[in-house]
Amino acid sequence: MTRTFSTDPRRDGYRMPGEFEPHDGCWMLWPERPDNWRLGGKPAQQAFVAVATAISASEPVSVGVSAGQFANARRLLPASVRVVEISSNDAWMRDVGPTFVVDDRGGVRGVDWQFNAWGGLDGGLYFPWEKDDAVAQKVLEIEGRDRYRAPFVLEGGAIHVDGQGTLITTEECLLNRNRNPHLTRNDIERLLQRYLGVEVVLWLGRGVYRDETDGHVDNLCAYVRPGEVVLTWTDDPRDPQYEISRDACERLMQARDARGRRFKVHKLIQPGPLRMTKSEAEGVDSAEGTAPREAGARLAGSYVNFYIGTRRVVVPLLDAKRDGPALRKISSLFPGREVVGVPGREILLGGGNIHCITQQVPSGRRRARRAEPAR
Amino acid sequence: MTRTFSTDPRRDGYRMPGEFEPHDGCWMLWPERPDNWRLGGKPAQQAFVAVATAISASEPVSVGVSAGQFANARRLLPASVRVVEISSNDAWMRDVGPTFVVDDRGGVRGVDWQFNAWGGLDGGLYFPWEKDDAVAQKVLEIEGRDRYRAPFVLEGGAIHVDGQGTLITTEECLLNRNRNPHLTRNDIERLLQRYLGVEVVLWLGRGVYRDETDGHVDNLCAYVRPGEVVLTWTDDPRDPQYEISRDACERLMQARDARGRRFKVHKLIQPGPLRMTKSEAEGVDSAEGTAPREAGARLAGSYVNFYIGTRRVVVPLLDAKRDGPALRKISSLFPGREVVGVPGREILLGGGNIHCITQQVPSGRRRARRAEPAR
Repeated sequence: MTRTFSTDPRRDGYRMPGEFEPHDGCWMLWPERPDNWRLGGKPAQQAFVAVATAISASEPVSVGVSAGQFANARRLLPASVRVVEISSNDAWMRDVGPTFVVDDRGGVRGVDWQFNAWGGLDGGLYFPWEKDDAVAQKVLEIEGRDRYRAPFVLEGGAIHVDGQGTLITTEECLLNRNRNPHLTRNDIERLLQRYLGVEVVLWLGRGVYRDETDGHVDNLCAYVRPGEVVLTWTDDPRDPQYEISRDACERLMQARDARGRRFKVHKLIQPGPLRMTKSEAEGVDSAEGTAPREAGARLAGSYVNFYIGTRRVVVPLLDAKRDGPALRKISSLFPGREVVGVPGREILLGGGNIHCITQQVPSGRRRARRAEPAR
Repeated sequence: MTRTFSTDPRRDGYRMPGEFEPHDGCWMLWPERPDNWRLGGKPAQQAFVAVATAISASEPVSVGVSAGQFANARRLLPASVRVVEISSNDAWMRDVGPTFVVDDRGGVRGVDWQFNAWGGLDGGLYFPWEKDDAVAQKVLEIEGRDRYRAPFVLEGGAIHVDGQGTLITTEECLLNRNRNPHLTRNDIERLLQRYLGVEVVLWLGRGVYRDETDGHVDNLCAYVRPGEVVLTWTDDPRDPQYEISRDACERLMQARDARGRRFKVHKLIQPGPLRMTKSEAEGVDSAEGTAPREAGARLAGSYVNFYIGTRRVVVPLLDAKRDGPALRKISSLFPGREVVGVPGREILLGGGNIHCITQQVPSGRRRARRAEPAR
């Protein structure tokens, strides 16, 4: 039974937990659109299978897939991964799925954000996006969790929280006129407070260079635990990422979180820089209304775009030279978890990485499905 | 986690329970195809909502719906009913859904029959039917129940069992050359024994007059409890149904079930006879490959086409003159259950009734969804 509430999570005693808190499961979608994924999506599908398989050693994984791809996805994914029919416009569960919130009695609910394909008709990445906008509700129906329909545009990748009152986001995304032009910075802070149960909103500036989401924080910076974040970094002052990361670091160092703590910032050297090859670009259909893929384009690769499972952290492998040091660094940050790498380039070619294609379901009390009292 | 087994349920200690045994839930699909349901399916949708609502007082109900109708179905169905995206070619969950089997340790699994739209290209009702054939697997993925894929064509409406070793079916359907022409009567009996855990197969002759499923037993005769059935009936010897019901009654009276019992047969006077009106027929699109709907056609109406929920029996209302006596009769047969009537004509116009559009999930032990052991 999934009810839709018109109240807000904070009023009802709910908060978004940190990703590092325990999970009941993880949701993903299945990539297929040939105007975003090269070669009919086949290499990306293999990459998604590897991600789902890696996470399924940590927690149960469910993958939503269109009717047309159901049999193929079912065949390619391991039996331990649940496959369900959910149609979508693309495969970014982080951004189109629900953001789960919890209370202190084992309750779990979902926030269903308004979605406009990262900018609608003003710089968004494709049109239409109405199937994406319906994904969160479909996930919540299957999970049997109640729902809040938020009154503003947001993607799950645009926020990170510590579960203790602090949220990190970027001005580039949340203050972009293509998201909620009628809302001021203060309005947005108040809505984030109400819908995610946070008190402090920490604004970074820009996201990763050439990130087509308008700078989602989840590709730039992630919580490791409360008070401690990992930030994508380069030591090359000629790289456009240099200034972005330096600015983010400064803002973090100057901030205090909701508990009054100063931040500990771990720097994680970025891969590459990486560029799309001619052969990769040629594998993508061109389509009216979809952002083109061009040979030579700088890719917004970042090791920060990992997924923190209950028992495993799953990290994209992106650069033979940098992967090893990145995995070692991330391992040192998560002493209680196994850290595993999965090839991430095919996901990156589609515009994101492992964090962007996953959405955790925090642990909660199971709700029994009951019959209604007879009327 | 849904595994597909290549063994069979009998070998693994599973049997199909009687519908009158307790349920964990009930599945349905959402009607929409305008070449079967009049007026774009809108009157049928109201009827399905009434059925789902009535059953939801007895046990949790899930309804599968196409992406295009998701929002409409979600709006029309009560919040207590779970709505999930499952595409299908029509809305007959009894025939396209899994038939659940149980063992004596709380295990529940599903049998996924091959489906050919009640006869394939040789008298079947529509083409194509590939989405219908995928429904059972999709239900099992969501239920988290393991699956047997049966190696022959069958619909759930073609069988009734007592859960104690006996199955009732009709020759008209199961021996029809448009189902499994390569299998003999003996072959089919052996397969039913293996896939449903029964010992005795009791063959009735024909199903209800003009039943377009080739005489599904579930419109003719249903178990009330082991050893006791209810049979649709007419006292009018000029009605073509007269001879069919008399023959079925004789076969039942002469039979013994797997426990050696003789049958107690309760006769239930049929509605009507009922015919499709000109206005009803005019509301249906004509489409190549779909059986036409014609004004004046005799409808295969039967009160036997009810659903036995855990706490409620839901019966189609079909004829102002006959409904009252039918409800009283059925009430007398189910002393432990509330018997409720729901208007059934709009479902009948599409070719079946309440039993045809539902599929029970027998009670079992809940399986925890767990992560896979790390590899």
